Amino acid sequence: MKKLVLAYSGGLDTSYCAVHLSKEKGFEVHAVSVNTGGFTPSEISEIEANAYKMGVTTYKNIDAVSTFYHKVVKFLIFGNVLKNNTYPLSVSAERIIQAIEIIEYAKIINAQYIAHGSTGAGNDQVRFDMIFQILAPEIQIITPIRDGKLSRQQEIEYLKANKIEMSWDKAKYSVNKGLWGTSVGGAETLTSESPLPEQAYPSQLQKEGEEKLKLTFSDGELTALNSIENSPEKNIELLNSLASSYAIGRDIHVGDTIVGIKGRVGFEAAAALIIIKAHHLLEKHTLTKWQLQHKEYLASFYGMHLHEGQYLDPVMRNIEAFLESSQEKVTGDVIVSLKPYHFTLDGIDSPHDLMNAKFGSYGEENIGWSAEEAKGFIKILSNQNKIYHQVNTKS
Amino acid sequence: MKKLVLAYSGGLDTSYCAVHLSKEKGFEVHAVSVNTGGFTPSEISEIEANAYKMGVTTYKNIDAVSTFYHKVVKFLIFGNVLKNNTYPLSVSAERIIQAIEIIEYAKIINAQYIAHGSTGAGNDQVRFDMIFQILAPEIQIITPIRDGKLSRQQEIEYLKANKIEMSWDKAKYSVNKGLWGTSVGGAETLTSESPLPEQAYPSQLQKEGEEKLKLTFSDGELTALNSIENSPEKNIELLNSLASSYAIGRDIHVGDTIVGIKGRVGFEAAAALIIIKAHHLLEKHTLTKWQLQHKEYLASFYGMHLHEGQYLDPVMRNIEAFLESSQEKVTGDVIVSLKPYHFTLDGIDSPHDLMNAKFGSYGEENIGWSAEEAKGFIKILSNQNKIYHQVNTKS
Amino acid sequence: MKKLVLAYSGGLDTSYCAVHLSKEKGFEVHAVSVNTGGFTPSEISEIEANAYKMGVTTYKNIDAVSTFYHKVVKFLIFGNVLKNNTYPLSVSAERIIQAIEIIEYAKIINAQYIAHGSTGAGNDQVRFDMIFQILAPEIQIITPIRDGKLSRQQEIEYLKANKIEMSWDKAKYSVNKGLWGTSVGGAETLTSESPLPEQAYPSQLQKEGEEKLKLTFSDGELTALNSIENSPEKNIELLNSLASSYAIGRDIHVGDTIVGIKGRVGFEAAAALIIIKAHHLLEKHTLTKWQLQHKEYLASFYGMHLHEGQYLDPVMRNIEAFLESSQEKVTGDVIVSLKPYHFTLDGIDSPHDLMNAKFGSYGEENIGWSAEEAKGFIKILSNQNKIYHQVNTKS
Amino acid sequence: MKKLVLAYSGGLDTSYCAVHLSKEKGFEVHAVSVNTGGFTPSEISEIEANAYKMGVTTYKNIDAVSTFYHKVVKFLIFGNVLKNNTYPLSVSAERIIQAIEIIEYAKIINAQYIAHGSTGAGNDQVRFDMIFQILAPEIQIITPIRDGKLSRQQEIEYLKANKIEMSWDKAKYSVNKGLWGTSVGGAETLTSESPLPEQAYPSQLQKEGEEKLKLTFSDGELTALNSIENSPEKNIELLNSLASSYAIGRDIHVGDTIVGIKGRVGFEAAAALIIIKAHHLLEKHTLTKWQLQHKEYLASFYGMHLHEGQYLDPVMRNIEAFLESSQEKVTGDVIVSLKPYHFTLDGIDSPHDLMNAKFGSYGEENIGWSAEEAKGFIKILSNQNKIYHQVNTKS
Repeated sequence: MKKLVLAYSGGLDTSYCAVHLSKEKGFEVHAVSVNTGGFTPSEISEIEANAYKMGVTTYKNIDAVSTFYHKVVKFLIFGNVLKNNTYPLSVSAERIIQAIEIIEYAKIINAQYIAHGSTGAGNDQVRFDMIFQILAPEIQIITPIRDGKLSRQQEIEYLKANKIEMSWDKAKYSVNKGLWGTSVGGAETLTSESPLPEQAYPSQLQKEGEEKLKLTFSDGELTALNSIENSPEKNIELLNSLASSYAIGRDIHVGDTIVGIKGRVGFEAAAALIIIKAHHLLEKHTLTKWQLQHKEYLASFYGMHLHEGQYLDPVMRNIEAFLESSQEKVTGDVIVSLKPYHFTLDGIDSPHDLMNAKFGSYGEENIGWSAEEAKGFIKILSNQNKIYHQVNTKS
Repeated sequence: MKKLVLAYSGGLDTSYCAVHLSKEKGFEVHAVSVNTGGFTPSEISEIEANAYKMGVTTYKNIDAVSTFYHKVVKFLIFGNVLKNNTYPLSVSAERIIQAIEIIEYAKIINAQYIAHGSTGAGNDQVRFDMIFQILAPEIQIITPIRDGKLSRQQEIEYLKANKIEMSWDKAKYSVNKGLWGTSVGGAETLTSESPLPEQAYPSQLQKEGEEKLKLTFSDGELTALNSIENSPEKNIELLNSLASSYAIGRDIHVGDTIVGIKGRVGFEAAAALIIIKAHHLLEKHTLTKWQLQHKEYLASFYGMHLHEGQYLDPVMRNIEAFLESSQEKVTGDVIVSLKPYHFTLDGIDSPHDLMNAKFGSYGEENIGWSAEEAKGFIKILSNQNKIYHQVNTKS
Repeated sequence: MKKLVLAYSGGLDTSYCAVHLSKEKGFEVHAVSVNTGGFTPSEISEIEANAYKMGVTTYKNIDAVSTFYHKVVKFLIFGNVLKNNTYPLSVSAERIIQAIEIIEYAKIINAQYIAHGSTGAGNDQVRFDMIFQILAPEIQIITPIRDGKLSRQQEIEYLKANKIEMSWDKAKYSVNKGLWGTSVGGAETLTSESPLPEQAYPSQLQKEGEEKLKLTFSDGELTALNSIENSPEKNIELLNSLASSYAIGRDIHVGDTIVGIKGRVGFEAAAALIIIKAHHLLEKHTLTKWQLQHKEYLASFYGMHLHEGQYLDPVMRNIEAFLESSQEKVTGDVIVSLKPYHFTLDGIDSPHDLMNAKFGSYGEENIGWSAEEAKGFIKILSNQNKIYHQVNTKS
Repeated sequence: MKKLVLAYSGGLDTSYCAVHLSKEKGFEVHAVSVNTGGFTPSEISEIEANAYKMGVTTYKNIDAVSTFYHKVVKFLIFGNVLKNNTYPLSVSAERIIQAIEIIEYAKIINAQYIAHGSTGAGNDQVRFDMIFQILAPEIQIITPIRDGKLSRQQEIEYLKANKIEMSWDKAKYSVNKGLWGTSVGGAETLTSESPLPEQAYPSQLQKEGEEKLKLTFSDGELTALNSIENSPEKNIELLNSLASSYAIGRDIHVGDTIVGIKGRVGFEAAAALIIIKAHHLLEKHTLTKWQLQHKEYLASFYGMHLHEGQYLDPVMRNIEAFLESSQEKVTGDVIVSLKPYHFTLDGIDSPHDLMNAKFGSYGEENIGWSAEEAKGFIKILSNQNKIYHQVNTKS
């Protein structure tokens, strides 16, 4: 029989795929969901139960939270990656790992086909297709939603006709939740003018006042929150639930899709934004000027390539080697103040802090060098432009 | 007589210089202050009166607000320049223009000497000395504070001994105000751990609730606020006073000084931060992916070079040509919501908006191309890495 | 009738297209060739005569040598663009201009169709299709060779069957000649191991010994050869015929095609290589360190984007603005020595030369500054890494 | 007694230092020479004998050829580093290693002073001083030549007066020989117009005709020459002597010194140029487009920082991590043809070659994808600029 692995999330699109492929197209459908931080155990149980209703032969959930952190999120933190200076690439990053996990599973069970439920208009189809083809060119890709150009209404009616009676409440917003943030698309994000209304965001303001928080980084990784040690991925989850109650981390990202159109999407990513800003502050104290400068160039391209599904390009491994090497001294504490809707960074404490009064204080008296030395420095630093202006200023 | 131009701000350091150079060293001192947005007319009158008390021969205030905007601030906006992703380079940018205005003045009045009151520990000495030397290598630079390594107490006593009895209240913080922001240094900023207390910032929260504001950009310049047209520099001032009442725009910058030590300084720059974020959002809608990417590289270096006093390097003119050229379509309105301590961007409206449902909507149905075309795109986009992995994966 | 413009070169592929489209498919075919430096007047007459034999309704040759120079070649020189440090992008650059000229012509004569003879395996199809679609999305693109996957033999037989009896000698190499160089593909270039044989190159060694040549640049443009002034495009032609007799400018380029496979192609581009190397040397003498550095970044991407057919992206205009601005002082003479198979650069003479003994000679005695000033310079330049190593070296 | 380590080369400057510091200034002088490939054993014996004549207490030669290769040269190859696209940084790279070796030796023998013979006009003083200060801020630096501003004549007379009667033939050119190349400065290089005469170069043409050579790289390192395996540093030496007999590898470098003036220096570096070009060709076949692109950015800055003595900045270790990581597949053979005064690259053979007819041949028939797929690819690739031009072209 024709063995097919289906990337299954339990939503309308992939439910349609499950029914269509197993009942109509005669595939032996093996549904797989990959948890990159968006599902609770009870949600997974529900997804599993539903999957079997749709006619799948087997269902499997792959827990990839830790894989997700170690293969991607870690490097997004090392690089302080915010696409267009705004978006932590929450969904982009997840899709990569989901695609890899699913195709690896398909190879293990010797599937000849692999299916996903993406439309033909977005980034996800590119990420899935690319990674599937690169890692398993011999497995054929099936994409019923893209091919059929189906509307939600058509899908709902098809499922009804197949005796799948579930309440597909046409949510106003399409929400995607994961370890590194939640995206919120639809309605206002389809045009350029308006923000999302408050209630569109998954978390609502629950706390007032201010709360101090200590983030401890070791070699660039978040190893403790308020001195309590946990794995970095666990700390991200903890920080997220803590900071979400202050309605921190909301914004709207406007960016270039891989298919060339502009896209706009809201997101809530409290932990991601706090960690990146705190980590960057610690780097400003512990890295040299040129480390900061070249990291910026590489991290910006790392974000672009990742966003565009180019995770498997070997250049990504090369950039990761640079980033990893740059984190050797990024160790210390950062104090953050959480407040309603925003946060501020108080300061840092690190044994590798290069700002140290022992070597001179900015704008104060010079203790590490004399006035004459400073003058010599500036004189020679001026040399090239002094020559340039003398040569090129004709009297 | 030995003619000397003194960069004079009316503060303790330059007052010391005025007295010391005119009374003790026998210079004919021509005091010059350059207003880059920090002084009111009454403050200038007071500075003038004081200057004569210090023994200067002439005093002149140069109004350089418009020059400052056109020569530097404009390009910082075009480039969305935030040093280390945080600091709008408020002071760095001002010093450059002040230095240029002062040395040009010195050349006009045929001064043989030029003096400034910077210490030997900071960036300002480098900016002043470099620009002075490059533009007028024949004029000798005199720096009494740097050379004498004088403490504030010594300076106050010196002035007292010279019958200058003013109240030099040893302010806890050293504040520098200008069109593009106000810096606040001292106390907490001398070490890494703590934020500035609220009262250290020049503006205090005066409004509650939320206020919508429309910023209109034409070719990248802020030409109207709430549909009222004014020069961009006037709009910056107006926006600043409006947004400051929400206590917006505060942060602390940690960065590399030109002399190699790390420096930390607080700042308040409501207009600068709002304009840069609004301008950047408009660019995300109107520029192509590669315009955004290469602008980022160039603008980051533009900020570094400006910060380090390299404004006269001809590469700065080349980068400005790129930036100017990139602004041709950056025209439209941006709606901003001001709120206590922070602001959000609602959205934009522009005739050049590349996000247009006519060409397809992100994540929705593909209308500009077919499923088959999307598959062809992805297949060929995967080619190189597909080949790479096939060549390099040995079975 | 269905009006169609055909990009026509007179070769086998476009001859097939002319016959097939006019006789079989019923189009009113308007053949256009664009001369970017590869055709002599007599060749054009022959192409014209043949075109009519193939059944075209009209034939037009557009002389685009000057357009080619001013729109592309000039900037390749300003940027010293050598793809992968080797290839002057001869063909890539020509195709862009050819595509623009042809589509503009199609718009003028109100054609509803446009056709080219590229296969589906290379870069040219991408360059043609992209520029056609971007500038005239309403005109439909027709590509008989790509669609039919026709072999040369099939095309020859088809033409014979249509009474077109010409000698299509199956040349061992496919040669493309233009102002900025000649490419030579086929046989050895289809695999990685071997060079092209000497006789595969269009020019053969005709001179021995050495010949000095003076290239005069004005604002980066080649305005005279041996003190004889001509337009830059004329000078390129003159230099090319001069240097080709020394068999200068041959190499093989290996690079990434737009479709993701690697491609290898021989080329001969004597003028391009000599001009770029001479121009670059003049820049090393007249530009500052940072101009050289940032030009390198931008020019490398300019070359990549051009190669990939992205000439119409507005970022290209922005980069051109930077490059143009950088050439203000690139004026002077460069002496080149032509020798069999290679050339060397003797030196330069420029009023903007920044290497001037008046300001100090490298490695000789310091005349512009004292030993103490040099020590001060180095001490402060060492600051950051001195601090880094002290902070991070634990005893 | 005051223990001093002297960086000693046996030339006039360091001979002066040896005598002056030991006899006149009362230091216990420990002379150290570091061999980075420039000295033969017999030359070292002679240097040693002379050192004692000058009054030094001990003399030590440190063999650093292998260290030099592993710490610097290797990465210059990985990065294909040619400063300003010309100069392999032969001398710059050597000085770094020499400085590190000498200061480490000074720390081991507990010297309180360290001396070098550089003038105040060049790069070497910066490299020596910086590395000395960073690695041993407690050791005082002594620089008699820089401080005394001595002319060669004065030095010769001083030595004569101190009974050192050696023939200091005032060589017309100052030559510096090392593993990675020989620099030749003086006479013509002090001005911009003329090349060095043939006889100024250390190697002269000895062979005619053409000679094929096979270079084998393993993970980017040159592990065999004509299939004979040796350490990479040995292979560099062998290749150098082989290729020098063809007078290959000569050129003149014009660049920015660290002190801001332009410098011009001739060099002969046959092995360096051949290896870099061969290595780069192998990379073009085995690396992806983005690996090549980002390597270029990083390697260019690696060269700039190295040249400017910033080898100890931790960013250099980060870049090295990237470069090392990028070499994983740079394994294979490159065939080079040596000819009088120049060389050409024939081609490569590598198991990791991405150019493979199996995946399609450039410009030939498309075998990996269909015409329709190619059209879909190009259509979507055109999207952004198609939208840009439609939005911004008003009719």
